[in-house]
Amino acid sequence: MAKDQKKQLRPKAETPKGFRDYFGADVTERKQMLDRIAEIYHRHGFDPLETSAVETVEALGKFLPDVDRPNAGVFAWQEAEVPGGGAGDWLALRYDLTAPLARVAAQFRNDLPAPYRRYAMGPVWRNEKPGPGRFRQFYQCDADTVGSASVAADAEICAMLAAALEHAGIQRGDYLIRINNRKVLNGILDAMGVAEGKPADDVLRTIDKFDKVGEAGVRQLLTVGRKDESGAMIEGVGLRPEQADPVIAFLTSKGADNAATLMNLRAAVGGSETGAEGVEELAQIADMLAAMGVGEDRAVIDPSIVRGLGYYTGPVFEAELTFEILDEKGRKRQFGSVAGGGRYDGLVERFTGQKVPATGVSIGVDRLLAALRAKGLMGGTDPGPVIVTVMDRDRMGEYQAMAAELRTAGIRAEVYLGNPKNFGNQLKYADKRSAPVAIIQGGDEAARGVVQVKDLILGARIAAEASHEEWKAQPAQTEVARADIVAEVRRILG
Amino acid sequence: MAKDQKKQLRPKAETPKGFRDYFGADVTERKQMLDRIAEIYHRHGFDPLETSAVETVEALGKFLPDVDRPNAGVFAWQEAEVPGGGAGDWLALRYDLTAPLARVAAQFRNDLPAPYRRYAMGPVWRNEKPGPGRFRQFYQCDADTVGSASVAADAEICAMLAAALEHAGIQRGDYLIRINNRKVLNGILDAMGVAEGKPADDVLRTIDKFDKVGEAGVRQLLTVGRKDESGAMIEGVGLRPEQADPVIAFLTSKGADNAATLMNLRAAVGGSETGAEGVEELAQIADMLAAMGVGEDRAVIDPSIVRGLGYYTGPVFEAELTFEILDEKGRKRQFGSVAGGGRYDGLVERFTGQKVPATGVSIGVDRLLAALRAKGLMGGTDPGPVIVTVMDRDRMGEYQAMAAELRTAGIRAEVYLGNPKNFGNQLKYADKRSAPVAIIQGGDEAARGVVQVKDLILGARIAAEASHEEWKAQPAQTEVARADIVAEVRRILG
Repeated sequence: MAKDQKKQLRPKAETPKGFRDYFGADVTERKQMLDRIAEIYHRHGFDPLETSAVETVEALGKFLPDVDRPNAGVFAWQEAEVPGGGAGDWLALRYDLTAPLARVAAQFRNDLPAPYRRYAMGPVWRNEKPGPGRFRQFYQCDADTVGSASVAADAEICAMLAAALEHAGIQRGDYLIRINNRKVLNGILDAMGVAEGKPADDVLRTIDKFDKVGEAGVRQLLTVGRKDESGAMIEGVGLRPEQADPVIAFLTSKGADNAATLMNLRAAVGGSETGAEGVEELAQIADMLAAMGVGEDRAVIDPSIVRGLGYYTGPVFEAELTFEILDEKGRKRQFGSVAGGGRYDGLVERFTGQKVPATGVSIGVDRLLAALRAKGLMGGTDPGPVIVTVMDRDRMGEYQAMAAELRTAGIRAEVYLGNPKNFGNQLKYADKRSAPVAIIQGGDEAARGVVQVKDLILGARIAAEASHEEWKAQPAQTEVARADIVAEVRRILG
Repeated sequence: MAKDQKKQLRPKAETPKGFRDYFGADVTERKQMLDRIAEIYHRHGFDPLETSAVETVEALGKFLPDVDRPNAGVFAWQEAEVPGGGAGDWLALRYDLTAPLARVAAQFRNDLPAPYRRYAMGPVWRNEKPGPGRFRQFYQCDADTVGSASVAADAEICAMLAAALEHAGIQRGDYLIRINNRKVLNGILDAMGVAEGKPADDVLRTIDKFDKVGEAGVRQLLTVGRKDESGAMIEGVGLRPEQADPVIAFLTSKGADNAATLMNLRAAVGGSETGAEGVEELAQIADMLAAMGVGEDRAVIDPSIVRGLGYYTGPVFEAELTFEILDEKGRKRQFGSVAGGGRYDGLVERFTGQKVPATGVSIGVDRLLAALRAKGLMGGTDPGPVIVTVMDRDRMGEYQAMAAELRTAGIRAEVYLGNPKNFGNQLKYADKRSAPVAIIQGGDEAARGVVQVKDLILGARIAAEASHEEWKAQPAQTEVARADIVAEVRRILG
């Protein structure tokens, strides 16, 4: 009874719901990828910035200070009362890396270089209902230029994104950055006579579906509505048929090359001044990308990219991986988007009242990592250490010396530190660690000044497939002089 | 009025109290240091583990579930109610990396290799009153072996710590790892007839002061008490004078070498079985360190190291930096401790009821970084990019092409993206970025197919110290052919 009670009081060893733990290669491979991306960002003049995980809810800004508990969407808590003062601040975990950047750009505006180019990589938190593959903590990897109104900043971000994807391992031809401009879209809305706000948002949301439903589908959705695959009726935006024409002209404006697309876009925006300005900016971006040696096979003007609604104010871009993978049902599909961004102006203004132009990109860390694995560029396993087995507990010092020698030679190595009594357990452990080699030295070998070096990878292959003759010709275990351990392990590791 | 009101409603752009932002070199230098340490940990067979920042308060375990708001010392919050269920879980930010390890070791005990060697690096959070230099988010860097009762695991951690410090940049001779054993201390308490619990804790706390107050001081503190420097009376533990003898014997047992120290310790523990076991373990550790090539100049048995009270159960160790630095008042003092650890048994038991032996080390990330800076091994500044200035807005593409060429050659470079109208601002910007070189090409240079390459570091030095003759002989600005930009910048960067 007392025992049962004690057992019930034990805490549960569980990762909190919606969170996860990362082991071994999951950590090293993500790190390796982010290091490669950071190298490119840094080479483009971007400086690292690491803000803390915690911000005031006030600075994060998505939430109203008069709400009793402002935790919808974020993890938030209230500080203890200030002694002699009022209620404590509400603090929260950051939900992205852009809100902290806006805070920093406002707070340190007199000290930071202007423009300020920065990159940031780290976890963010979302207080959302967890689901399969949807976690409440995940990595973001952002680069932004704050304080430059020039589209040269946008062009630079696009070129840098291309370089970062390639440096991370995505080959040229396997990705495409599509570039659009919200000003062009606004010009189209002008030309349609659609007001800003909800009507404009409805149209933008419809444009975003072009890839899926095509020209006729978009026309239906903009006007009377459309039956979807399941037969359900999707309500239309309610435009008059002729009002939909500019959108269609816009969506079908993608030509054989940037020059053709830009010509079509100029026609589509009609007399809209904003629209013409947007097309001109796209033309400049196209020129600058060409000057930087980024061809249209890597970054191209594409009017079908919308990227969200209220946030962006100028150029927007999205990087897609164009190779096919098999989905969970075994069907081929394009890998899809791994990064996106664009120009935004309002974020710093929240704090200072002054508009500060900014543009940036965010790479989907988990998606890009999944892509590299899908392409076989990352193995998902870490190379295991050489295991020095323990045959004789009293000679632990000698086993440690062997491992130390291997490490000095740059080889990952460790001594088995479990209970050495059962040698089979030691080999099972080596297997679990994906160890390539085991070193064995019993009393007999020690007396003769030799060790057994066991090639575990070859051993596994021989056990699986080799004939008896091959097995004899290619032994997976070799006896070498004690002094030759490093040389023999090097030979096996190749 | 309306304007004032609007201004008041603006959020404050402020880092939350007790938190800080890390810019540029603060990020890259810490990362560089942690990468070096991780390399050593990995080579010793340790696998990376990254748990999420968030744990259930239950799993963190320092806090009682029946307290209304269990946030003393941690940042904690309660999840929203479970629909149809009861109250939500209490979640909290981890306060160290050991508690999450214990949770993982219990949760995944059937899948993890046994023993499980892991390292972890990342921020932890403490809900404490912030003070000068005391932050509520800071980095920890831990390595632990879970599931090995062998002191070989402790010896390995000590040898690895020495290798990690050296690989991070601390030279041999500038650090010393001191090793003690809680079992020896317990043996001393046995010999003194001091009970476990508060009496034992009081004695251990006094031992910890040996470095400061010396033999006579410790004797006073153990018995009747002692006047401190300010004249205030510090209460004594209240032992009889002869009871203090074993402690003094213990504290003065450090000999000329490990062999002498171990002999003195054997005498000091008298007939205590635990004490003798502890000395024997230290002797084994000393032997294994010698076998691994770690001399007593790097890791040595030292009975004066205590490290806390209830937590450790066996060997304990601490790494000190032995070089002197100037403190804030300009006085020389030893740099002091940068890492510590030891053997602990109770952490996993909380979850499973089974004792799991574990040993580990934690490096003080901020302190080690400060030490590397004090030794001039890290500069505190990042090399700035080459700045391509903008003389002619219409040739932005050409300027971008120059920057792209430099980057392709592996040189950090960027185009100035602020308003180019005032050229002085561009040079001020270059200065703020610590740019080594500026590239200048106006219309005239463009027509002649040349650029001006300005050596900003040499320029600054000449401006500060050179005579007019030197200035003429060593011009800080050179005109080169457009095609020679990369070669000329390479020449300047050396």
